[in-house]
Amino acid sequence: MKNNLHRIKSVRAERNMVYMIDQVLLPWEFKICKTERYLETCKAIKTMIVRGAGTIGATAGFAMWQAVYEAPEKNYIDFLNKAKIEIEATRPTARDLFVAVNRVYERALISRNEAEEEAHKIADENAEAGKKIGEFGNNLIKDGDRILTHCNAGHLALVDYGSALAPVYKAHSEGKNIFVYVDETRPRSQGAKLTAWELNNAGVPHAIIPDNAAAWYMSLGKIDIFITGADRIAANGDTANKIGTLGKAIAARHYKIPFYVAAPLSTFDFDIKTGKDIQIEERSQDEVLYQTGPDKKGTIRKIRVASHGSPSCNPAFDVTPKKFIKGFITEEGIKKI
Amino acid sequence: MKNNLHRIKSVRAERNMVYMIDQVLLPWEFKICKTERYLETCKAIKTMIVRGAGTIGATAGFAMWQAVYEAPEKNYIDFLNKAKIEIEATRPTARDLFVAVNRVYERALISRNEAEEEAHKIADENAEAGKKIGEFGNNLIKDGDRILTHCNAGHLALVDYGSALAPVYKAHSEGKNIFVYVDETRPRSQGAKLTAWELNNAGVPHAIIPDNAAAWYMSLGKIDIFITGADRIAANGDTANKIGTLGKAIAARHYKIPFYVAAPLSTFDFDIKTGKDIQIEERSQDEVLYQTGPDKKGTIRKIRVASHGSPSCNPAFDVTPKKFIKGFITEEGIKKI
Repeated sequence: MKNNLHRIKSVRAERNMVYMIDQVLLPWEFKICKTERYLETCKAIKTMIVRGAGTIGATAGFAMWQAVYEAPEKNYIDFLNKAKIEIEATRPTARDLFVAVNRVYERALISRNEAEEEAHKIADENAEAGKKIGEFGNNLIKDGDRILTHCNAGHLALVDYGSALAPVYKAHSEGKNIFVYVDETRPRSQGAKLTAWELNNAGVPHAIIPDNAAAWYMSLGKIDIFITGADRIAANGDTANKIGTLGKAIAARHYKIPFYVAAPLSTFDFDIKTGKDIQIEERSQDEVLYQTGPDKKGTIRKIRVASHGSPSCNPAFDVTPKKFIKGFITEEGIKKI
Repeated sequence: MKNNLHRIKSVRAERNMVYMIDQVLLPWEFKICKTERYLETCKAIKTMIVRGAGTIGATAGFAMWQAVYEAPEKNYIDFLNKAKIEIEATRPTARDLFVAVNRVYERALISRNEAEEEAHKIADENAEAGKKIGEFGNNLIKDGDRILTHCNAGHLALVDYGSALAPVYKAHSEGKNIFVYVDETRPRSQGAKLTAWELNNAGVPHAIIPDNAAAWYMSLGKIDIFITGADRIAANGDTANKIGTLGKAIAARHYKIPFYVAAPLSTFDFDIKTGKDIQIEERSQDEVLYQTGPDKKGTIRKIRVASHGSPSCNPAFDVTPKKFIKGFITEEGIKKI
């Protein structure tokens, strides 16, 4: 069911309005979420209407611009300082968010116009980075390759093109015969819900697999390359990404399958020496204990998927040590670090 | 919410009636499923009303006994041969099923009474094996240990006590301060639904974790020992168990966490030299694409949890090579093979 939905930017802005593809409604409903005030945009980040490091960064940049737009002449700096803290508190793990907020904040100290320009520049750079990542990453994909990916690092996660999926789109557009194994990516199922939706729209052959099946397919020789995105990369190359990445990276090394992390340079955090210093967000237990989706009639239902009375743990990310990562696909080429 | 539900046998028989805890309704509803004819019991195995290697074996033994009971004098052997094939076709991976069916079948060639006795003997042996596995396995669990388990290998899976959970129950009953990390175990969520239910009933401290989080908790030093059951163990120790076991076993070895497989000797298949010869059941795509559970009002709903239009793969088991397994907890002690 090929269509052009995968070519719509995950976030964009016009004047003080921010327009985001509502990723909570996906894949059941395609809708643009519109916000006018920075606090609404904070809420959109927090509730994961937008998600994915690059998209979070661009959205946070626009949120900071909205705060600049809203700031009263009288308490301009105080207002911005307060807003900056609030925006930064929405998702603690994403490197791009802090970079974007700071960039817009610093320009706002010069003028409102500069802040607005900077916010747009961040989003444009992000989209351009995705395009370049696609070109460089495509060189790693051979005709006939079967690719494993985890979570969603497609155009939904990076304003446009994507990070991990950008090379996939590029390889597919060049006519390479590829197949993508899509990790379901519990608990939020971004693989089954978002990556599958993207690949389906783009007409890329794929199948959703339970996260549990990835190592098994590796052992059977069914995976040629493993590519994910990243949420934050430490100076030594240790990489925070969606929970489950680490286990697959360990298995990939065991089976000698190359594991590449695709990410724009904005995801690298040279202030953080190693993965040990990356803060990992613990999210609500309910994400593990409940699932949401449409019933046969299309009505969205929330159901319990775990025994009543049992608690759960829900770390949103894990950290994969550099030694498991063969290289980083960036907008400046493949880096080994 | 400690109670005695975890002390009820997963399957038992009286005359030609078989009584099974309905594991499809669990954990939402506790109900005993009753079958009178062997074909009904076949259906119960196939639809996973009973599951878990030991319970499947005992149930298949009772199904074979029901067939003996039903068999007409005139076509006694033909009827049994046909029934044997039908029962064996229900779940191809479980070793115990074939052992049990054969044992009852061979006695049926002598007399109906002997067949009935044999079927009960299989179930009793299974329960007794669970008890012994608990005693031997308990020696591996230290006070303060945090245990990871995958899928359900509790009393639901082994007539009584369980395999992987039997040592947990024993350690808990001795007052050891233990904590169990329960892998959700997608796609059928036997961990979140059945193991969590069992541990909750027994008052054992635990938390459900997404399958994706297991390697992360290992890397943080939060797991002291990893114990699972098994569906079939080859002569060289390669072990077929619920999909996802392999990935965790690889991670456990990397982090030097001992991985033990708990299984009665009936799960060992010395006719199969290595794991390469174990047949792996591919189950319905729908198990990955849909989830079932109660909504807020308690109504059981089936919802889609993956993007429409995307296919899935659903291998039910994987094979963990012997080198990742520190030992086998059996009713005759800890075996290294």
